[in-house]
Amino acid sequence: MQKQFEKKELKKKSDNLSDWYTDVILKAQLADYAPIKGCMVIRPYGFALWEGIQHYMDPLIKAHKVENAYFPLFIPEKFLNLEKEHVEGFAPHMAVVTFAGGEELKERLVVRPTSETIMYEMYKRWTQSYRDLPIRINQWNNIVRWEKRTYLFLRTSEFLWQEGHCAHNTHKESVSEVRWALDMYKETYQNLLALYGVAGVKSESEKFAGAKKTYTFEMLMPDGKALQGCTSHDLGQNFAKAFHWTVQDEKGQPLYPWQNSWGFSTRSIGGLIMAHGDDQGLIMPPNIAPIQVILIPIPGSSPKTIKYAIAQREALKKIGIRVKCDDKDGESAGFKFNKWEVRGVPIRLEIGDKEAEEGIVTAVARDTMQKKKVSIDEISGMLETIQQNLLETHKKFTLDHTHTVESYDHFKKIMAGERGFISAFWCEDASCETKIKAETKASNRCLPLDLPAGRQVPKEEKGTCVHCGKPATHRWLFAQAY
Amino acid sequence: MQKQFEKKELKKKSDNLSDWYTDVILKAQLADYAPIKGCMVIRPYGFALWEGIQHYMDPLIKAHKVENAYFPLFIPEKFLNLEKEHVEGFAPHMAVVTFAGGEELKERLVVRPTSETIMYEMYKRWTQSYRDLPIRINQWNNIVRWEKRTYLFLRTSEFLWQEGHCAHNTHKESVSEVRWALDMYKETYQNLLALYGVAGVKSESEKFAGAKKTYTFEMLMPDGKALQGCTSHDLGQNFAKAFHWTVQDEKGQPLYPWQNSWGFSTRSIGGLIMAHGDDQGLIMPPNIAPIQVILIPIPGSSPKTIKYAIAQREALKKIGIRVKCDDKDGESAGFKFNKWEVRGVPIRLEIGDKEAEEGIVTAVARDTMQKKKVSIDEISGMLETIQQNLLETHKKFTLDHTHTVESYDHFKKIMAGERGFISAFWCEDASCETKIKAETKASNRCLPLDLPAGRQVPKEEKGTCVHCGKPATHRWLFAQAY
Repeated sequence: MQKQFEKKELKKKSDNLSDWYTDVILKAQLADYAPIKGCMVIRPYGFALWEGIQHYMDPLIKAHKVENAYFPLFIPEKFLNLEKEHVEGFAPHMAVVTFAGGEELKERLVVRPTSETIMYEMYKRWTQSYRDLPIRINQWNNIVRWEKRTYLFLRTSEFLWQEGHCAHNTHKESVSEVRWALDMYKETYQNLLALYGVAGVKSESEKFAGAKKTYTFEMLMPDGKALQGCTSHDLGQNFAKAFHWTVQDEKGQPLYPWQNSWGFSTRSIGGLIMAHGDDQGLIMPPNIAPIQVILIPIPGSSPKTIKYAIAQREALKKIGIRVKCDDKDGESAGFKFNKWEVRGVPIRLEIGDKEAEEGIVTAVARDTMQKKKVSIDEISGMLETIQQNLLETHKKFTLDHTHTVESYDHFKKIMAGERGFISAFWCEDASCETKIKAETKASNRCLPLDLPAGRQVPKEEKGTCVHCGKPATHRWLFAQAY
Repeated sequence: MQKQFEKKELKKKSDNLSDWYTDVILKAQLADYAPIKGCMVIRPYGFALWEGIQHYMDPLIKAHKVENAYFPLFIPEKFLNLEKEHVEGFAPHMAVVTFAGGEELKERLVVRPTSETIMYEMYKRWTQSYRDLPIRINQWNNIVRWEKRTYLFLRTSEFLWQEGHCAHNTHKESVSEVRWALDMYKETYQNLLALYGVAGVKSESEKFAGAKKTYTFEMLMPDGKALQGCTSHDLGQNFAKAFHWTVQDEKGQPLYPWQNSWGFSTRSIGGLIMAHGDDQGLIMPPNIAPIQVILIPIPGSSPKTIKYAIAQREALKKIGIRVKCDDKDGESAGFKFNKWEVRGVPIRLEIGDKEAEEGIVTAVARDTMQKKKVSIDEISGMLETIQQNLLETHKKFTLDHTHTVESYDHFKKIMAGERGFISAFWCEDASCETKIKAETKASNRCLPLDLPAGRQVPKEEKGTCVHCGKPATHRWLFAQAY
């Protein structure tokens, strides 16, 4: 552990979320600022979270017959220029290589801000007939989007992600892929990261640059602001047309493939940190926790007790629990408790002479801080309970801060106060969206798709736009966004 | 499969290694040329090889208490300038971002050609005392070194690798780490990729830019040229001094940490392809093969036979064999045999009505092309045999083409003919090395360290330099290099 950790107390989440957020990331050694503006270093404890996400998600992607590959880091600028909306969206964030191998480049190379253009150029070369579709490829890589204002994990000029890119013979197939990806992301957030959220479709002005439709998963943070957790895009035939990519259909006619892309990034770790932590530090959901159980033999224990502690560690390892024993010399028990609380380890086991004699352990759950004597067999169940509690707590928080609103006064009042999700009728006119954002800071997050099973599109309702009063058919979700 | 595959026959390895190499990579769909000069796309079948290497090596790295992390893609140019030899080595290969976020950058950013400088800047911030060492971090990432002449997998302007970077309190500890990495690489080459080679230490002129000593693993390719498979560097205190990084030692005095770095890249896949393939295509060593067994139901078989084939596939899957059934319509058996031979699948199983009746399968081993009727239980053993045979064949080839040479005439004669490894006394004067290379194309590969157990440095012998005739104490290995 760094000295900085020992010297300074952690800032309080209850005082200021933003200060705490940065402080806990640095002190728990998840990440650090890099000596390059807007970039961060993901330290081992933070990177283990990303590995956890990869280990969970990669098999789901492969089971869906999507194969991993690797495409170049550099994209010729002319490729990005081919799809008009796409280049307009990304131009302000591009980092450009102009000099390489000792000379000025004739063609400027953009460090990939996303890989649609380079991948589809290759797909075009690899396919001739409808029989060559679907083509389904994913890559885990690094992405660069230059940002003026950055925030550890949530917005950095370089980040890590996976990007899936598929092409199909029909729009229906492609849309089904888009929805599959959205469901997979939702499952990852809920089951792995214990984060509740709302899946939905973006409005025209908020969709991805070049997409026909963008799907999203939006989560509420403790300060009442929303975090976009991932996106999944129905690209229609936009890119195929821009790249003049056709395959022969069954009748020998040219067909523009229907495409989709979907991405999930290290930003998700920002959500995890922000939603679950408390004044004592991080709280790691057990399913993703790099260390699920920290075992601390009380300093001054007898050799017999130390032996007992080691035996408990081995027993836990044997049943697949990620456990670590902190028997470092020269640190007090209190110091160690504090250290692992900051790092959010779900369960702490204290083992002293008394525990060894009784053949039990004293366990402290990180979420409730409740202490109890248990046998080692109960640890798995405790981890499951913590995982479930964290998701339930976040779900309850989200629902408690989701406001169904009928008037613009009410809308403004909420945004001036506690914020949260606002469900309101909107006329689907972009000018209302813009004004709402300018006046309240709340942007349009999505049209929620959390629907009764079997229904694909929300039923039309009769309503009036919360801003202009014109007729509206659906309630959209608004919030101030990260 | 691409149409190109159906249309053209594969070039012959026995005619021209280099033409075959490129052709088989494209036709087996391991990789393709990217529309960026010097860059390649690693296609799913090729990327599966890299994933195989990661899955094998990552647990070995972690078991050695090296943790994964992620450091930025961009390195401020001034960092690279801090270690003089380091920047001189990399300057001609740098790609530089000069423009980002819509404006000219004040500080030019180099796309990482290796991460020593950015990592050690952070290590310096994270450590204060000898107690904070060792620090052991690895990252799997992408690297850019601009190259004028490129070659798929073997030399591309962007490649993938892992880079391990450790810092220790003593030189002894650091060297032991360097040797551990070298052993791990050797094990990976031999056990996973079935490649034999020679581990050794580089001469002064061939070592890494900024290192005290560089260790290497050198393999012989079928054309008698050598491939450097990986490197592991004893960095001494060079970088610590360049970065003014000290920690307090046990007596409170400043100590420059002893560092090492070690890397293994996608280049290894080039060696794998080149060494094992034949005129029919690739030969994948079973331990790394993305598909170990291809099962082909003979077209026109009865539904009962198809059912039998599926049952065999499931039985193989159950015992952990990576098996695929090619029951695609519209392709002849011969076409399918050819397709999977090009892709180097170690075992082909042909299943027709006769096999189904007898309850066996007809198996063809890719390396020997021998066909025999076997029961499904024999497949695991066959895979093991193929793996072993490939390594033995490569070892025999290497030893058969390793020449112990006493005179420079003999040296030149071998290099003008079959080439291979040449073991010769050398006076350790760089000017002899330079002249030998200019006159014969053979560069100094290493001082071999494949020694009887327990001996760390080759015993001194009495000899005379093969070039200048001055006294020499060791035989070094020479070869023309890729």
